[in-house]
Amino acid sequence: MTALRVAVTGAKGRMGAEVCRAVEAADGLELVAQVDQGDSLDALADAGAQVVVDFTHPGVVMDNLEYAVTHGIHAVVGTSGFSPDRVDTVRGWTDANPGVGVLIAPNFGIGAVLMMQFAAKAARYYESAEIVELHHPNKVDAPSGTARRTAELVAEARAAAGLGAMPDATTDDPDGARGATVDGIPVHAVRLRGLVAHQEVLLGDAGEMLTIRHDSFQRTSFMPGVILGVRRVGSVPGVTLGLEHYLDLD
Amino acid sequence: MTALRVAVTGAKGRMGAEVCRAVEAADGLELVAQVDQGDSLDALADAGAQVVVDFTHPGVVMDNLEYAVTHGIHAVVGTSGFSPDRVDTVRGWTDANPGVGVLIAPNFGIGAVLMMQFAAKAARYYESAEIVELHHPNKVDAPSGTARRTAELVAEARAAAGLGAMPDATTDDPDGARGATVDGIPVHAVRLRGLVAHQEVLLGDAGEMLTIRHDSFQRTSFMPGVILGVRRVGSVPGVTLGLEHYLDLD
Amino acid sequence: MTALRVAVTGAKGRMGAEVCRAVEAADGLELVAQVDQGDSLDALADAGAQVVVDFTHPGVVMDNLEYAVTHGIHAVVGTSGFSPDRVDTVRGWTDANPGVGVLIAPNFGIGAVLMMQFAAKAARYYESAEIVELHHPNKVDAPSGTARRTAELVAEARAAAGLGAMPDATTDDPDGARGATVDGIPVHAVRLRGLVAHQEVLLGDAGEMLTIRHDSFQRTSFMPGVILGVRRVGSVPGVTLGLEHYLDLD
Amino acid sequence: MTALRVAVTGAKGRMGAEVCRAVEAADGLELVAQVDQGDSLDALADAGAQVVVDFTHPGVVMDNLEYAVTHGIHAVVGTSGFSPDRVDTVRGWTDANPGVGVLIAPNFGIGAVLMMQFAAKAARYYESAEIVELHHPNKVDAPSGTARRTAELVAEARAAAGLGAMPDATTDDPDGARGATVDGIPVHAVRLRGLVAHQEVLLGDAGEMLTIRHDSFQRTSFMPGVILGVRRVGSVPGVTLGLEHYLDLD
Repeated sequence: MTALRVAVTGAKGRMGAEVCRAVEAADGLELVAQVDQGDSLDALADAGAQVVVDFTHPGVVMDNLEYAVTHGIHAVVGTSGFSPDRVDTVRGWTDANPGVGVLIAPNFGIGAVLMMQFAAKAARYYESAEIVELHHPNKVDAPSGTARRTAELVAEARAAAGLGAMPDATTDDPDGARGATVDGIPVHAVRLRGLVAHQEVLLGDAGEMLTIRHDSFQRTSFMPGVILGVRRVGSVPGVTLGLEHYLDLD
Repeated sequence: MTALRVAVTGAKGRMGAEVCRAVEAADGLELVAQVDQGDSLDALADAGAQVVVDFTHPGVVMDNLEYAVTHGIHAVVGTSGFSPDRVDTVRGWTDANPGVGVLIAPNFGIGAVLMMQFAAKAARYYESAEIVELHHPNKVDAPSGTARRTAELVAEARAAAGLGAMPDATTDDPDGARGATVDGIPVHAVRLRGLVAHQEVLLGDAGEMLTIRHDSFQRTSFMPGVILGVRRVGSVPGVTLGLEHYLDLD
Repeated sequence: MTALRVAVTGAKGRMGAEVCRAVEAADGLELVAQVDQGDSLDALADAGAQVVVDFTHPGVVMDNLEYAVTHGIHAVVGTSGFSPDRVDTVRGWTDANPGVGVLIAPNFGIGAVLMMQFAAKAARYYESAEIVELHHPNKVDAPSGTARRTAELVAEARAAAGLGAMPDATTDDPDGARGATVDGIPVHAVRLRGLVAHQEVLLGDAGEMLTIRHDSFQRTSFMPGVILGVRRVGSVPGVTLGLEHYLDLD
Repeated sequence: MTALRVAVTGAKGRMGAEVCRAVEAADGLELVAQVDQGDSLDALADAGAQVVVDFTHPGVVMDNLEYAVTHGIHAVVGTSGFSPDRVDTVRGWTDANPGVGVLIAPNFGIGAVLMMQFAAKAARYYESAEIVELHHPNKVDAPSGTARRTAELVAEARAAAGLGAMPDATTDDPDGARGATVDGIPVHAVRLRGLVAHQEVLLGDAGEMLTIRHDSFQRTSFMPGVILGVRRVGSVPGVTLGLEHYLDLD
């Protein structure tokens, strides 16, 4: 079996460099091009790349994607800033180039994606749901994007199942101990020296609790998700939003 | 909307009595017959029962089921002892009475079923998987049936994904601290005064861990699962094994 | 060995009734008087009580205590509302009756008291400390009194060790996900159907975390603390505030 | 204030090198000598070292200690292999050189030491106690030394309090799911890719559970304990076994 030919854009960035290492270490993948600022995108086609991985920035990612799709190269994208308008634009390119697949994902941590999916699936069976996320103390925003996204998914699942507001008799909370509320779901943010990125979703009903927790001990733990994306993107034509669609959860 | 007419066999048993209370408390359900030892099964048909819930014992459950299916009454069964032979026999009855549904489930705890299903779905993405179950100290068997079943499901998922043996460099374990191995999955049983029934499935890979934990604080926490079964059994003809098939997990 | 003679005031109240049962079930204790509204306190002396347990209310507890101390009866008190003034008054009575002991405690849960003491002892060794308390959704106040008290103890320990503010780079928290701050310690309150009373104290430093968690699965779990108080109060003359002083923690 | 003058033996070893870095980074400490294989111990006295840190090996540690104590240099020792005989020998040296302190500790992780101490203090109040340790899958021994030591301390505390065997009705455990038993305390060992070194002590009684958990996310997390030892060893003459004696736990 010949190896899948993979290129990386933003290859000198912190993330891009790790992607390069991960591609080189993965069975059945070959790193054929490393492109960074100032390099011509033609290096992708010249190297015969079949898939490109893009961890760059919002200012250049659209050019990179247009080049890839129009040259028949599948793309796995971790760059942020994909508004609905931008997604529509990419979809226009893939419509014009049937067979080309693009995966755009805000989170390549397989465990975090599984946590979110399981929480959403379980939510309809539980009267109460809350989220506790825990991170290192250098994080500037609270709650985390993953916690916010989890809350939205849980809220959608509750609404679809016809569940109303959660039980909560709190009348006296002068200091805000009950935390934030995102789409009706309480979200709590802990910041602790020594931690990296952790989250638990707590689902409660009469006499029982279901807890789904993800611990990320190292920031490199998203690489298996990137590699999984690289392997599958060629068989999923069009634009796919979110790694969860590549996981076999059904 | 007219209420669904529900009968209970084994109505005076510990479980049957709780089912009676749960049916009476549930919206849209009406308890129309309570049958116990010495009562004629004709009480079911006479009362116009549409669904019967059976928590009895292996010696009588087959007679109960034959009566129910041949009289067009759907059945939700928590009685133990269903060998493949017995299941085939029941399937013969439902084949002869198309449209009648029978749900046979070893565990009606929705949370426990969700835990098992999620663990199985996640297992293919993790190099390591272990199970820790924790129960009150009056339990005579270790590990629990739920832990055993979880291990089997995780092992099946790993095999289907082509995963081999888990990494484990242990060479020195004179006292058996590594616990039991069920289908290749390490299982640990804790017994502690004050606990009821708890389990966590730990899934580990480079730099991350996914934990799925279920806490049962009261033994009555399976009633929502029974009621869910009662509501759905009429729309699922034939024999169904396991509550997981009634949950919307896809 | 003759049994210790114990009386209970507020014997018909929810707590008092449980205390009566616990005293009767305990080795070496004899329940000799049960006093409630309308009964004369002379029943205590008449029955030869050596210790009285008082779970009544702020309007009567001072009269009960004055009677007990002046009659040479030790007292274990779970009634709330003890201001510094009230404590001084009781101390005046015990000064005048040397040898009589009075234990006044806001919390008789041994586990909760241990959690608080351990958290305070460990706090000086950790850069970060936060508290997450979890309760049933019928609770009206947040955070819990135990969480507030834990935060105070942790803050005192940090100050005594010369620790400054905890690291926290949060600049963007529009919805209050970071929770309440009690004496500088972040406190988070979760409310979930199925829970009773739970708390964990998280202590973090470079590369490590210490977690001290207490789960109360039943509201009766404070009885061992009351019985421990009854057994020891006779050997600790004067007024003692808090069950922690009766525990062998050193 | 002049800095405390610190030397390191085994300075080129993995641990010694980290100690050098930690000493250099610590306020009020000065690294004045780094000694390794082939160097003369006279470098310690020549540099005016007040404290020496020794992470070497059993073959040389006794010579190092004799030199240090007889030259009036305090010693913090993480080297293994200290039999009672060896400890007696060191004690002979410190007896002859009053005022010199030697700390010999098998574990410099402050959090792990706190966990063990708290578990031992709490054990007398709980009917049940079990230990779960979790490590990376490259570990060859099970259970860990820390888990073994924790079990011994818990067992001693239970015996001192007159507690008998723990409740356990298990009669059917064909595969050893109940784990190892160390001094009567069940100990379970989990091995999972992604983990480093973790342990939880579970203490249960009627209606409640106390959990003390330590997570070590990085192997360098023992450096604060070494530095604490360096700072205090000069004020604790004689031989001290175990870092717990330097912590303010009372």
